[in-house]
Amino acid sequence: MQNPVQLDKTLATLDSDRDGAIARLLEFLRIPSVSTDPAHEADVRDAATWLCRELRGLGFTADIRDTPGHPMVVARSQSGDARPVLFYGHYDVQPVDPLDLWDRPPFEPALEETENGTVIRGRGASDDKGQLMTFIEACRAWKAVHGALPSDLILLFEGEEESGSPSLRPFLTENRDSLTASIALICDTALYADGRPAITTQLRGLVGEEIIVTGADRDLHSGSFGGLAANPIMVLAQALGTLKDDTGRVTLPGFYDGVEDADETLRRDWDALNFDAAEFLGRVGLSTPIGEQDRTPLEMLWNRPTAEINGIEGGYTGDGFKTVLPATARAKVSFRLTGAQDPQKIRDAFRAHIRHHLPQDCQVEFHDHGASPASVMDTSDAAFAAAKQALSDEWGRDAAYIGAGGSIPIAGDFKQILGMDSMLIGFGRDDDRIHSPNEKYDLDSFTKGARSWARIIAALR
Amino acid sequence: MQNPVQLDKTLATLDSDRDGAIARLLEFLRIPSVSTDPAHEADVRDAATWLCRELRGLGFTADIRDTPGHPMVVARSQSGDARPVLFYGHYDVQPVDPLDLWDRPPFEPALEETENGTVIRGRGASDDKGQLMTFIEACRAWKAVHGALPSDLILLFEGEEESGSPSLRPFLTENRDSLTASIALICDTALYADGRPAITTQLRGLVGEEIIVTGADRDLHSGSFGGLAANPIMVLAQALGTLKDDTGRVTLPGFYDGVEDADETLRRDWDALNFDAAEFLGRVGLSTPIGEQDRTPLEMLWNRPTAEINGIEGGYTGDGFKTVLPATARAKVSFRLTGAQDPQKIRDAFRAHIRHHLPQDCQVEFHDHGASPASVMDTSDAAFAAAKQALSDEWGRDAAYIGAGGSIPIAGDFKQILGMDSMLIGFGRDDDRIHSPNEKYDLDSFTKGARSWARIIAALR
Repeated sequence: MQNPVQLDKTLATLDSDRDGAIARLLEFLRIPSVSTDPAHEADVRDAATWLCRELRGLGFTADIRDTPGHPMVVARSQSGDARPVLFYGHYDVQPVDPLDLWDRPPFEPALEETENGTVIRGRGASDDKGQLMTFIEACRAWKAVHGALPSDLILLFEGEEESGSPSLRPFLTENRDSLTASIALICDTALYADGRPAITTQLRGLVGEEIIVTGADRDLHSGSFGGLAANPIMVLAQALGTLKDDTGRVTLPGFYDGVEDADETLRRDWDALNFDAAEFLGRVGLSTPIGEQDRTPLEMLWNRPTAEINGIEGGYTGDGFKTVLPATARAKVSFRLTGAQDPQKIRDAFRAHIRHHLPQDCQVEFHDHGASPASVMDTSDAAFAAAKQALSDEWGRDAAYIGAGGSIPIAGDFKQILGMDSMLIGFGRDDDRIHSPNEKYDLDSFTKGARSWARIIAALR
Repeated sequence: MQNPVQLDKTLATLDSDRDGAIARLLEFLRIPSVSTDPAHEADVRDAATWLCRELRGLGFTADIRDTPGHPMVVARSQSGDARPVLFYGHYDVQPVDPLDLWDRPPFEPALEETENGTVIRGRGASDDKGQLMTFIEACRAWKAVHGALPSDLILLFEGEEESGSPSLRPFLTENRDSLTASIALICDTALYADGRPAITTQLRGLVGEEIIVTGADRDLHSGSFGGLAANPIMVLAQALGTLKDDTGRVTLPGFYDGVEDADETLRRDWDALNFDAAEFLGRVGLSTPIGEQDRTPLEMLWNRPTAEINGIEGGYTGDGFKTVLPATARAKVSFRLTGAQDPQKIRDAFRAHIRHHLPQDCQVEFHDHGASPASVMDTSDAAFAAAKQALSDEWGRDAAYIGAGGSIPIAGDFKQILGMDSMLIGFGRDDDRIHSPNEKYDLDSFTKGARSWARIIAALR
């Protein structure tokens, strides 16, 4: 039997220890744990060691767990009568180049006053060290007030998120029993654009495919062969250009099987966001949504699948002109998936479409560049309503269920391997410059983030 | 009054100086005169200098004539009582990429024994250095035998043929008086497929166009923007993929205006060639003509216009995968023209077609890469019959009037600017791999080519 929850006292403790929390985060940020760069291998391990020591100091059972790549840090609190919950974050950071675009050394973090308030500036401040520390600080305050950590927590910290997470799926598979909880909390996302607190409840999936079309056994002169010989670039253009019709709809047979409209609740939440597509697109020099014209912009981004050509090359592309009919042309194509679309069926339908457009004289080679289904969380789980209310209480405005157009593969991995849904809750902002020079995390995101977790932990008791 | 023509002796002299002629050609081929590549600018001039020195050594009045691009070489023999004739060739060559597909360095030419006889291997061996040297070697032997060069010859050598001949028309216009002859001999074509000597009497024209489609002001992440933001690669695929319909017909409005069927005589000549499309395509690993299915293969090649994509690039094309929506994508597109098609109208129709497919958020930039109408010669000029007989005598089989699928814009320019028809006589072969790795010229083409010119020069006295 745990002590009664003392939320107000926990929040007050967080407030009074603010400077200590900042100092700890700055120390953590000083470790240059760039996972993609072999030169930083020892630094990545230092960050894991730092985290592990921190967690043990709080009373967690914590270990560094080696993998073929960078290590995982796994920590547990005592078990009690709370619902078992897994918290996920990553302690590795993006490379810092181009270094000369930073206004201060990326691993000498500091508080800075800006016209939008105080920020913590440094690589990893937002993605993801600052975010994961919000949860650890909530645990620290909880322990100070209640005399014990919140029960039934599993903490999982990865050191390869910025380099494709090669060890994650095997690690989850090998440690299925000890990592499975009733739900996962993933803190690697942002507040909604205007600063409204949000829980991301659906993520699009992805199918990646490369195709190489080959015609003649050599490059041909279009004067000698043009009109007679198949041109692989033209074949590609015809096959890929017909992936979408005039209305923006993908033409592959069965493509929309499993795609579902947002339900009434979600649609109301999304409408309330007042998403301004013109403003959103305006920031990158665009103005007009090009998706299916009978859909709202947010549906296009979050709830509708796409077909995109991400790369194409063939023939002569240097200066001047060359009247060549090239032997080969290639393209990289991806599909963002929603609802219950089956990645394998999409891949099969795409390959059939390409083969259908292939003239007798051309061959095609396909390369599988990975696939993941969309993640759609079951928001009828009471944890969602509890966390949403907790966020609304902390931020003084209604939290929203939102979608995301991109994939966060960890959510799919948790579902597939551990059978659990995820609540994606984060406090980053669109202007945090993650992956870019001068990354920052608003001090407000950090302090209110920690308070938010204290409220959510309390709500999940 | 010239000495009497001693053709047999001239031919014998060519035969006995064969090794000298080969050595001179190899020296010429070692100069990497790639006109499209600014890095080779000095090499192109070196090739002009080499030619000029060679011609002066033979007794021609020869000069390098500067242009805004690469220089022209103009040479003249003494005037006499022969019909004034202009000979044209080009001393620039195609780029060599992909270099790793060459079996020997492209500018270290050599004789090679193959199962089809001895070949001269190297960039430019066939297109066009080897061909133009056949004429120079004929002049050399003529002078050795007759004590003087053939009279009334104007030689014009261009250094920009492989990069669209931007300086040619202004040069012809400025030098109209000194370059005009009764007829032009152009040596930049091939024997008919089976090795039959031929005079090309019609050539397709060409319109070259580059298009650059721009969307957002930066590369976008397809997770954050996919479904909402215009994708320039998709725009290109859709616009270019619809240039042809299912039957192989070009869809641009008015595209076929001016296209005419071959007349009865020519059609009979072409039928007699017994063109074997399967065999022709089989040599490059293909089998099936992809042109308009109600046309014969020779019509597709010689008498029907085309639309081709010669190069395309956009987005990420390296190893792995990147879910990018690129800011720009570009393509090089060309049209082969026949009959009286108007290049400017074709270009306009193409640009209108692209603009029609352009979503509101995309811009397009067009670059004009040159244009020339098709050329159709008047074969009733007596020079045609004389040359046809000379070729038949040298090669021991009936020479034919044929068409060509490629453009030799110079023929149209000679007609338009200098008012003269051209006889296109060349000795290349279909398997010469011009514009491709491992270009070659048959030694037989080179030696019998030179003998053919000696006969033609004699016949035109």
